[in-house]
Amino acid sequence: MKKHNFSAGPSILPQEVIMKSSEAVLDFNNDGLSILEISHRSKAFIDVMEKARSLALELMGLEGKGYKALFLQGGASTQFLMVAMNLLEKRAGYLNTGTWSSKAIKEAKKLDDIYEVASSKEANFNYIPKEYDIPSDYDYFHCTSNNTIFGTQLKSFPKCEIPMVCDMSSDIFSRQLDYSQFGLIYAGAQKNMGPAGTTLVVVKEDILGKVSRNIPSIMDYKVHIENGSMFNTPPVFAVYTSMLTLEWLKNLGGLKGIEDLNEKKARLMYSEIDLNPLFKGFAAKEDRSFMNATFTLENENLKETFETMLKEAGISGLNGHRSVGGYRASMYNALPIESVKALVEVMSELESKA
Amino acid sequence: MKKHNFSAGPSILPQEVIMKSSEAVLDFNNDGLSILEISHRSKAFIDVMEKARSLALELMGLEGKGYKALFLQGGASTQFLMVAMNLLEKRAGYLNTGTWSSKAIKEAKKLDDIYEVASSKEANFNYIPKEYDIPSDYDYFHCTSNNTIFGTQLKSFPKCEIPMVCDMSSDIFSRQLDYSQFGLIYAGAQKNMGPAGTTLVVVKEDILGKVSRNIPSIMDYKVHIENGSMFNTPPVFAVYTSMLTLEWLKNLGGLKGIEDLNEKKARLMYSEIDLNPLFKGFAAKEDRSFMNATFTLENENLKETFETMLKEAGISGLNGHRSVGGYRASMYNALPIESVKALVEVMSELESKA
Ligand SMILES: Cc1ncc(COP(=O)(O)O)c(C=O)c1O
Ligand SMILES: Cc1ncc(COP(=O)(O)O)c(C=O)c1O
Ligand SMILES: [Mg+2]
Ligand SMILES: [Mg+2]
Ligand SMILES: [Mg+2]
Ligand SMILES: [Mg+2]
Repeated sequence: MKKHNFSAGPSILPQEVIMKSSEAVLDFNNDGLSILEISHRSKAFIDVMEKARSLALELMGLEGKGYKALFLQGGASTQFLMVAMNLLEKRAGYLNTGTWSSKAIKEAKKLDDIYEVASSKEANFNYIPKEYDIPSDYDYFHCTSNNTIFGTQLKSFPKCEIPMVCDMSSDIFSRQLDYSQFGLIYAGAQKNMGPAGTTLVVVKEDILGKVSRNIPSIMDYKVHIENGSMFNTPPVFAVYTSMLTLEWLKNLGGLKGIEDLNEKKARLMYSEIDLNPLFKGFAAKEDRSFMNATFTLENENLKETFETMLKEAGISGLNGHRSVGGYRASMYNALPIESVKALVEVMSELESKA
Repeated sequence: MKKHNFSAGPSILPQEVIMKSSEAVLDFNNDGLSILEISHRSKAFIDVMEKARSLALELMGLEGKGYKALFLQGGASTQFLMVAMNLLEKRAGYLNTGTWSSKAIKEAKKLDDIYEVASSKEANFNYIPKEYDIPSDYDYFHCTSNNTIFGTQLKSFPKCEIPMVCDMSSDIFSRQLDYSQFGLIYAGAQKNMGPAGTTLVVVKEDILGKVSRNIPSIMDYKVHIENGSMFNTPPVFAVYTSMLTLEWLKNLGGLKGIEDLNEKKARLMYSEIDLNPLFKGFAAKEDRSFMNATFTLENENLKETFETMLKEAGISGLNGHRSVGGYRASMYNALPIESVKALVEVMSELESKA
C-alpha cells in the first residue's frame, strides 16, 4: 500500500510522474533505449531540457521578461556559493530566518562582506522579522522564502531596490507571487519539483556580469546560460522527472490551481493543531508555512501511542527536525489532501483516547 | 527492440540494473514508497550510500589503505575546480592528452600556476606523450586516463613522488591497475558506473588539508568525508543506480572479469578496423583506448550506405566527435560483445559490397 508521505525532502512526487518516470527508465519514447543511457546531446533530451526550462518560466509568469532558467547540479547548497561568486562585489544583505539562511550567510562570508539585515535567531527562528532596511548600495539582498526546518514562510517580500535573491527550495511553485520582483530564484528540486539531483536557477540576465572576480566556468551562470544549461553533462533523469512534474502542475491549473489546494491542506492541518488541546504549533501564526507545519505533542506520555497510530495509518516522514523537536508535516504540492485528512484523523482520535 | 548502444556517454548500463532501477522508482524495497521520494537520511538510503562507497573501494583494492570514496554532484567538470581548490597551493603539473585535460588545465589556471608537463596537442591528441619529468616539488600531477574524444588511453602511469590525480571518467572500473599509485581519482558516473548526475571521488585522506585557501564547504573534500558523502542532499537515484552497477560488476568477477571482456571487445573492434581496407584507426596503435575506438571511413562515397546499414542493424551512438570526425565506437563495461560483433559484421558487409 502507498504510504502517506510527509517527508521533508526528498519527498512525495505525483504518482503519475513516478509511473511515467519508471517507464522511461525501461524505454524512453519507445525508442529502444532507457532515459539513463541516451546522450544528453540527443534531440530527444535537448527537447526535454528546453521544455523544462520554458515550463519553469511559464509557470512563474516570467516569459519574455529577461529571465533564464537553468537546471544545474549540486543542490541548493551549491547556490549558497554560486550566488556570492556571481553577484558579490563588495557587500550583500542577508535576512536570517533559519538554518538554511545561516548556511547561505556562512558560505557567502568566505568570499566577502555580508551584513545580516535582520534575524530571528534569538527566538529559535519561530517567526519572520519584518522591520529592517536594505541599503540601496549593497550588491544584492538574500532571503529564504520558506524555512523547511522551522515551518515559517515569508508571506510578502520587502520592497528592494537592489536585486533580490531568494532560496525557494521548499516552496518553489507552490503559490502565486509577482516573481518579477526577484533577480534570482533558486531551489533544489527534491521538494516540490522532482527527485534529488537537480537545482533550478531562474535569473534575470541583466544582473549578471557585474563582479570583477574571475569566476570558475562551472560556477558561472553566464557560462551555463550560453550553453543552454548543458555546459557539462546535465543530470538527465532528474531533469526529465522535473519536467514531468512541471507538466503535471501546468495541467492542474498552474500556480493558481496548486495554491488553492495547498491552502486547503494547510488550513485543515493548522486548524487541527490549534483546536486539538494535545498539540501546539511552533511558528508564529502569521508566519506559518503552508509547506511545513511544525508542532509538538504537549503530553510526552502519549508519544508512543501517537506514533503507533501514525504507523498503523500508513503515515510516514512526520518526525520533526532536531532543532525544533516534535513533529513536522511537510505538505508539498504532490501531497494529496487525503493524506492530511488521514493525519488529522489520527490526531483527533488521539484526543478522544486521551 | 533494444538497440546496440555505442553512445559515448551517458551510455549503456546493464539491462538488469535498468530493470531494478525502474522497479525502485515504482516501489523501493517493497516499502510503499518510490526511491525518488524517500529521505536521504532514512536507514534504507544510508545503507545504499555506504554500500556504493565500500564497493567502489573494494573493486579498486583500496580498502584499508587510507582512501575514502565520495559520490558527489556536479560532474567531472566540477572536479576540475575542486581538485585545484583542495590541492593547489603553488604549482601543479598537468599532462595534456585531449579536450578534457585541456579543460582541467584551464580551470586550475584560474586559481594558480599550472605547468603542462607534456602535450600531444600538435598531433590533434592522437597519441599519449611518454617522456616527461614531474618535478617533485609540485603540489600534484594530473592526468586523464582515457581520452573519450580522441580514443587514446594511458596503458601505464608515470612514477610520481607527488600525489597523482587522475580523471578516469571514461574508463573507471574497466581494468586492473595498482590503484594505490593514485592520490585522487575522479569520474563522472555516466560512462561505466551509472546514470548522469553523480561523480565518484576516491581520495587518499592524507593528501588533504595542506592548502592555505579558505575552501567553500561544498567544494571541500574533507567536509564531504566528515559527512559520509551527505553534506547536503545527495543525488539519491543516481547513487542507487551506481550501486546496482557496482554490484553487477562485482558479481561479474570484479575488475579482472570485466578487463577480460573489455579486451575481447577491443581486439575484435580494432582488428576489423585494421584489416578492413575501408576503415582507418585514428589513435596511435600502442595508445588505443579499450573504451572508445575512433576511426574514419576512407571513402566518403560509402558514408550514406554505411550509415543506413548501421541503422538497419539497430546500431546507435556511433558518430565521432567533431574534433576527430568519422566514427567512435564506445565499448563501455555494459556493452555486450554481441553489439561489437553486430558492428563488425556491418563493417565487413560494407567491404564485400564495395
Ligand atoms: C530552504 C532550503 N535551502 C537549502 C537546502 C539545501 O538543499 P540541498 O541539500 O539540495 O543542498 C534545503 C534542504 O532541505 C532547504 O530546505
Ligand atoms: C574524460 C572526461 N573528463 C571529463 C568529462 C566531463 O564530465 P561531466 O560532463 O560529467 O562534467 C568527460 C565527459 O565526457 C570525460 O569524458
Ligand atoms: Mg530552515
Ligand atoms: Mg492545539
Ligand atoms: Mg578527450
Ligand atoms: Mg583498415
